[in-house]
Amino acid sequence: MSWSQHRITLEARPRGVHLVTSEIVEKVPQLRELRIGLAHIFIRHTSASLTLNENASPDVRRDFETWFGAFVPEDFAWTHTLEGADDMPAHVKASLMGPALTLPISDGRLALGTWQGIYLCEHRDRGGSRSLLVTLNGGSRHEHVE
Amino acid sequence: MSWSQHRITLEARPRGVHLVTSEIVEKVPQLRELRIGLAHIFIRHTSASLTLNENASPDVRRDFETWFGAFVPEDFAWTHTLEGADDMPAHVKASLMGPALTLPISDGRLALGTWQGIYLCEHRDRGGSRSLLVTLNGGSRHEHVE
Amino acid sequence: MSWSQHRITLEARPRGVHLVTSEIVEKVPQLRELRIGLAHIFIRHTSASLTLNENASPDVRRDFETWFGAFVPEDFAWTHTLEGADDMPAHVKASLMGPALTLPISDGRLALGTWQGIYLCEHRDRGGSRSLLVTLNGGSRHEHVE
Repeated sequence: MSWSQHRITLEARPRGVHLVTSEIVEKVPQLRELRIGLAHIFIRHTSASLTLNENASPDVRRDFETWFGAFVPEDFAWTHTLEGADDMPAHVKASLMGPALTLPISDGRLALGTWQGIYLCEHRDRGGSRSLLVTLNGGSRHEHVE
Repeated sequence: MSWSQHRITLEARPRGVHLVTSEIVEKVPQLRELRIGLAHIFIRHTSASLTLNENASPDVRRDFETWFGAFVPEDFAWTHTLEGADDMPAHVKASLMGPALTLPISDGRLALGTWQGIYLCEHRDRGGSRSLLVTLNGGSRHEHVE
Repeated sequence: MSWSQHRITLEARPRGVHLVTSEIVEKVPQLRELRIGLAHIFIRHTSASLTLNENASPDVRRDFETWFGAFVPEDFAWTHTLEGADDMPAHVKASLMGPALTLPISDGRLALGTWQGIYLCEHRDRGGSRSLLVTLNGGSRHEHVE
């Protein structure tokens, strides 16, 4: 049984929805050691978020951004506007998607469905680089797990 | 301390929100062995999702579907339309609800509130059967857990 | 390696979004014992929810409530209205935010970002006190965790 924790940084990206599965997996090679476990991937910000969705078509990611623009609009009765028109919508979008993903690990890999990929949702125009904390927990491939 | 992982299949259901608590619990009898733990229930799809909500009135589940239809509409500026009018809304709804539930286990049972039940949200008209991966982790009822 | 589970009660609050980080942390002193781990914070209700967002400006919390009022409105084609106009919107909002937070623990503290705080989202006008179940799991600070 083992626990490990890994701080990783995702480089600055423009506002929008970005596929980051392989970038995250490559930065946490320790997950290859786990036979059964969970990967908890946590973004330490309140204006960017993580979700799981379709990993093939870029249209899907573009359409997410269009939906956000219509249903969490900048032009709204916000009072918290000091940090820019994109700030308060970013906070609401961040909670709608959520700050964390808990993903199953099987035989050293994330046990995602065929079409599932990790999206970094950057809700600010200039959010800068984003800091993630990944916590791995599971039974090692080299020990018996009852 | 133990880990186990269980693939389960939920039969095809029509578009809408379906209560599946007892179906899931029956398919994972291993959770009865855990004194304290967590059940991670993961759907391996991007057009169906899992959430927790009111387990009594079918009206609540119907009203969820009505809300989805109004606030994640089919008639919208989607560009990803090749797979049908219900596809892109399904992706957005799936991320709004989320692909996983992590639920506490106490004394061999899911420690849900009185009114809480697991909803399978089927966002496609013909989504087919849905594949779930359940990961259980906890302290056994037969060992001392410090 | 240890597991523990703690029932805590949050006192009744008016409808709206409330910052409860320190209240929760103070009620679960056991998390100080964990070197690496996860805290699973679960609300046992279907008309209140938990999310993580900006811990400084009260405007942000007020604006969340304004957004909810516009995009999950009381005046809508709901059929489940027996329990009051605020009930069915509360159910939808609860699933949008979610019933649980899984948060990383590092060196005996929640490893939140600088601006992150735990929000209790009270979606009912008179929701009463709210019951939470916190499950802690991790490696103790007094043992070697491989």
